[in-house]
Amino acid sequence: MSLPKISHTVFFWLKNPDSIEDRSKLVEGLKTLGQIEQVKAIHIGVPASTEQREVVVNSYQVSELLMFENVEDEKIYQSHPIHQAFVENCSHLWQKVEVYDSVAV
Amino acid sequence: MSLPKISHTVFFWLKNPDSIEDRSKLVEGLKTLGQIEQVKAIHIGVPASTEQREVVVNSYQVSELLMFENVEDEKIYQSHPIHQAFVENCSHLWQKVEVYDSVAV
Repeated sequence: MSLPKISHTVFFWLKNPDSIEDRSKLVEGLKTLGQIEQVKAIHIGVPASTEQREVVVNSYQVSELLMFENVEDEKIYQSHPIHQAFVENCSHLWQKVEVYDSVAV
Repeated sequence: MSLPKISHTVFFWLKNPDSIEDRSKLVEGLKTLGQIEQVKAIHIGVPASTEQREVVVNSYQVSELLMFENVEDEKIYQSHPIHQAFVENCSHLWQKVEVYDSVAV
């Protein structure tokens, strides 16, 4: 499978890390981002039950991977009404977020 | 585009962060991982030139995203000879690595 050029990866740490309800609300909100035309692929996840080696980070509660064709599309996404609505509706749920944007080489 | 269920995301901080040669060696090594049958999608990247907001982490030099159908396939990948050869040939290049394994929800 050939992937789009830009990966936008976000990890979320909830204010209430043990709240399944808050996690579900965040997951539901994140899934709306897939409706944005510029989002070519989406993967919303939670830590997988893989081997817990020292280098594995699994302290986050929810992960988001969006893929774009180019950085211009990611810029359009940032100011898209669906993305803005997501931030407005869900940002109270998390205490920390880390974003990694990578371009394929 | 529908993505496989498991995302395996790794960020690398090089021992020589300014060495384009070391970065190229690592990228070249990472690309061999795409030959592994269980790897259904691969994206090897470097920090993109997106807006530098406070939440954006761009201190790493190379990113790796591999996608698997299930955690069993990721386990097979971990002990696959091509993966083992990559670790043997390239692990001297990095000083730090962070791994995030997520399962789609």
